[in-house]
Amino acid sequence: MSMRTFTRSILLTATIVFALISEAQSKIMLVIHGGAGTITKASMTPEMEQQYRAGLEQALRTGHAVLKKGGSSLDAVEATIRELEDNPLFNAGKGAVFTHEGKNELDAAIMDGKTKGAGAVAGVTIIRNPISAARAVMEKSPHVMMVGRGAELFATKMGLEIVDPSYFWTEKRWKSLQNELLKEQGRPQAHLDAVEIKKFGTVGAVALDQNGNLAAGTSTGGLTNKQYGRVGDAPIIGAGTYAENESCAVSATGAGEYFIRWTVAHDIAALVKYKGMTVQAAADEVINHKLPKEGEGGVIVLDAKGNYAMTFNSEGMYRGAIGPDGVPHVEIYKAE
Amino acid sequence: MSMRTFTRSILLTATIVFALISEAQSKIMLVIHGGAGTITKASMTPEMEQQYRAGLEQALRTGHAVLKKGGSSLDAVEATIRELEDNPLFNAGKGAVFTHEGKNELDAAIMDGKTKGAGAVAGVTIIRNPISAARAVMEKSPHVMMVGRGAELFATKMGLEIVDPSYFWTEKRWKSLQNELLKEQGRPQAHLDAVEIKKFGTVGAVALDQNGNLAAGTSTGGLTNKQYGRVGDAPIIGAGTYAENESCAVSATGAGEYFIRWTVAHDIAALVKYKGMTVQAAADEVINHKLPKEGEGGVIVLDAKGNYAMTFNSEGMYRGAIGPDGVPHVEIYKAE
Repeated sequence: MSMRTFTRSILLTATIVFALISEAQSKIMLVIHGGAGTITKASMTPEMEQQYRAGLEQALRTGHAVLKKGGSSLDAVEATIRELEDNPLFNAGKGAVFTHEGKNELDAAIMDGKTKGAGAVAGVTIIRNPISAARAVMEKSPHVMMVGRGAELFATKMGLEIVDPSYFWTEKRWKSLQNELLKEQGRPQAHLDAVEIKKFGTVGAVALDQNGNLAAGTSTGGLTNKQYGRVGDAPIIGAGTYAENESCAVSATGAGEYFIRWTVAHDIAALVKYKGMTVQAAADEVINHKLPKEGEGGVIVLDAKGNYAMTFNSEGMYRGAIGPDGVPHVEIYKAE
Repeated sequence: MSMRTFTRSILLTATIVFALISEAQSKIMLVIHGGAGTITKASMTPEMEQQYRAGLEQALRTGHAVLKKGGSSLDAVEATIRELEDNPLFNAGKGAVFTHEGKNELDAAIMDGKTKGAGAVAGVTIIRNPISAARAVMEKSPHVMMVGRGAELFATKMGLEIVDPSYFWTEKRWKSLQNELLKEQGRPQAHLDAVEIKKFGTVGAVALDQNGNLAAGTSTGGLTNKQYGRVGDAPIIGAGTYAENESCAVSATGAGEYFIRWTVAHDIAALVKYKGMTVQAAADEVINHKLPKEGEGGVIVLDAKGNYAMTFNSEGMYRGAIGPDGVPHVEIYKAE
């Protein structure tokens, strides 16, 4: 082989390798939601809308940075959700709503589409980032789901950041609870930002990494005025959170009880697996046709080819996606 | 019409009505399990085997009596599981295993195949019959799942029977925990009845009533030596428990973490719904082919025509069925 032929071979090989890497990396994708419900343009001030958009974009950029540098979809989902948990605009982590008793009880779950590894915590009150606790349950315990004080002791032992329950207190959520309590007593409600009314706050992310692996995660403060000990769909594998490379990754937000009873996340995956539906068709089928009227909410769904859906039957859903180009796309209302 | 013709018409109508009722009633069916695992003839004494068989038969007769007199599948499932919960042979209610901390934490769920109504409790320590608490959550709360102290307060308010935690203490289960703790410390284990070793104790029932409605229920004490706060598959709708008239009713028992990750109960239902499989084929597919080796356990599955499967990948599963004739059929080992 001449030096020239050798050089050409090297260049050709390099080009092929580069093309393969580009091809692999071109797949990275991250889709998020920040809750669904009665969210309309009329109910928003421009300032609030701007804040929500900025929060979603920031979360998308955080997760994208992880994927871009070759991080796993699990890492991206965790980093994205931590960002949303730390943002008091969203009902998860800081910004969680209050239970009937005036406490903040948080739920979260994460699932690895490659191994079907899963972890979840429910009813925790002192863990700053419940999504990281869910991941610790998945990776560092023999269990999938841990609840209440047991989950808190485990998270503490694992060295996760523990906060005083007052960390989760925000004035806006406290007023929401007071309003609900007034409503229960049949008394007039104080004025609230309209957007606070009838919103199912939850945050979630689904991601595809350059190795073609999917992951899903969901985190929530649950329902304002929920009963002490109530667990919604977010930490239930198959209801609010599900991921398997062979079908899709799903994170849901909505009237949790209906999402549990209709096994929403796994039913979407089953339609993809067993009926050969696209993620869009499967999400539409479950969210717009199977769930009853009371089952208000939505899902984000992503498959291993990077196809995704952001489907909801409510008036709005905070949502967004970011692909290989790193440009965040954020939407809030029904037609955008 | 002559008197004779009239009488004939009446008789004919009565005969048809009677035939229709018989036809309707001929469908009633109840299938139960009492846990799966390393249960072999060699590990049993004849006395123990006799006790288990008698316990299963008694539970079958209890549920059958409900169905026979026209009761709903939900009533039959609840009555059957209460019977098994009260029997210290089975790991549910009285007879529950101990957590690492030496406590009994109980989980249960129930689901109505007609309405997809569902209720579940997890990590409860003072409710004598967790299956009834699950039903109260379904019927008397806006929620599906309640855990820990919140679930206990709710059950107390609903007037369910509350017991001192010591009610659940049994010598056999206490010894199992001590043995596990010795094993953890690398110390020699005391002699235990062989059958106590590696058994996934859970009880469950699926029923079909004369109106063609399905129901499923599951109740468990979880895993011996489990970490405080761990929740298994039994109370997770779609994992250990699921029912819908259009597909089937399922109750599972086994290595709960795998049953959650593989969404076992809903996956079986999905194969019936979307692939047109029989309940037997769907159960075989999930239990014997989809679950990994570590996912040891089994399921009982029943459809609205009365077809049922009792499928397990372990050496044995306490199980039984009773149909319209009211004769209980009970099995324990693999080939019987």
